[in-house]
Amino acid sequence: MKNLCVVLVGTRNPLNVGAVARAMSNFGAMELRAVRPYEKAWREAKSAVGAGELLAQAKEFPTLAEAVADCALVVGTTAVGNREMKHPLRGLEEAARLIGKRMETGRVAVLFGSEKWGLSNEDLSYCHWLMRIPTRVEHRSMNLGQAAAVVMYELVRRERITAEAAEGLQRTRRRGTEKPKRAGLKASATPKNKGKEEFAEMETVERIGEALLEALRKSGYIAPRGEAKAEEKLRRMLRRFSMEAADAEVLLGMVRKILWKLEQE
Amino acid sequence: MKNLCVVLVGTRNPLNVGAVARAMSNFGAMELRAVRPYEKAWREAKSAVGAGELLAQAKEFPTLAEAVADCALVVGTTAVGNREMKHPLRGLEEAARLIGKRMETGRVAVLFGSEKWGLSNEDLSYCHWLMRIPTRVEHRSMNLGQAAAVVMYELVRRERITAEAAEGLQRTRRRGTEKPKRAGLKASATPKNKGKEEFAEMETVERIGEALLEALRKSGYIAPRGEAKAEEKLRRMLRRFSMEAADAEVLLGMVRKILWKLEQE
Repeated sequence: MKNLCVVLVGTRNPLNVGAVARAMSNFGAMELRAVRPYEKAWREAKSAVGAGELLAQAKEFPTLAEAVADCALVVGTTAVGNREMKHPLRGLEEAARLIGKRMETGRVAVLFGSEKWGLSNEDLSYCHWLMRIPTRVEHRSMNLGQAAAVVMYELVRRERITAEAAEGLQRTRRRGTEKPKRAGLKASATPKNKGKEEFAEMETVERIGEALLEALRKSGYIAPRGEAKAEEKLRRMLRRFSMEAADAEVLLGMVRKILWKLEQE
Repeated sequence: MKNLCVVLVGTRNPLNVGAVARAMSNFGAMELRAVRPYEKAWREAKSAVGAGELLAQAKEFPTLAEAVADCALVVGTTAVGNREMKHPLRGLEEAARLIGKRMETGRVAVLFGSEKWGLSNEDLSYCHWLMRIPTRVEHRSMNLGQAAAVVMYELVRRERITAEAAEGLQRTRRRGTEKPKRAGLKASATPKNKGKEEFAEMETVERIGEALLEALRKSGYIAPRGEAKAEEKLRRMLRRFSMEAADAEVLLGMVRKILWKLEQE
């Protein structure tokens, strides 16, 4: 869980901030970040009795982009199903499996929106995909602290299952004699190309977006009025590509070179 | 979940009572009982805004014996491991499996003790066994509302798994003849949301590569001698992005527009 960041966006209630921090500590996730928290709530939560080290070390960011800059995967949480969905929506169990896999090689951010509004469309444009805790249709929306607790629980549960599977595989191998049946299946729970499939950090992807946007502006692809929307669309698209770190570097170099050429004229 | 009773023993904080009720409602457990609740806390929780039907119908009992009289299984929750244990202690996952089984035929009570003291020795004497949410040794004790949410989540998860397994079994039985070999695996390989996540055809991806290559040539990114290698690298990279069809069309339009601009000069 040391590769997990919990990011609170626009949280209003200090009790909820405290509750999220407590659940994180219960399950061993120690890195809390906040984007534009309500100043008073943030101060109150930090100074609450028993807030502990986790809250004391929690960092505040002016923008979501900065809060997730060093993360390779950004997952938003939502209670809603009927919003116009531009992202894949995964149930918590499947989500935890994917997050667990990604945490083996890089940092993952899990976002919780404000108590009242959830994550905004702009916030969502920073997400690779969304996840949902499978609550009843009649009462979907969970309390923030409780939702965080359930998510932490499932992530730890998944981590334990993976660790047990990996251990089981090793034990089988050490035993030597019997051939590990369906080893391929079990092996898929452990990292395939260790150290190879590192995913791009969001900072790099964001830079590609900026350079590409500028190139599109210069080429007249984007009408001046449509700029904000184009930027959001572009951001979503680049995240859907799930670039590996090396590819992102190459692509950034390409786009920058093209942009440089466009600016020469 | 209709055979589940959540029993709060000696709860002090109305916010916690409300939080337990909310988590229950989120996950479809509708029967809340309280033993010797702090009178004021109980009244406040019941009259809170949005408390809803669940709390309105919650019943109060003078003794734990009466509260669990109609239950076939009584399970206590505990954060502690070092108390002198007179009961089997199970992890939440195993506990949920056993509770789920029992709920098929009878009522099960899950007990939560007071925020400060947990369940007393006398309370424990009404339990068949105890369960524990697997939290960190360094920070074992969970907030009451959050613990309830995690327990409800795991019970519903277990119920769903059991239902799915039963359905899968029925389907197998109905089909009768062939044994579905690794059906689960195959099913996961086919697209879940058909028509939603259509992937780009390789033809489109190839066109993106051609246009991008030309743009890179024009910008001087590619040295004339290195062209063949660059083309191959670019092709591999674009395939690794696993683009959706709609994204590929957009990207092709972008690159072509940029190329057009480069060719203007």
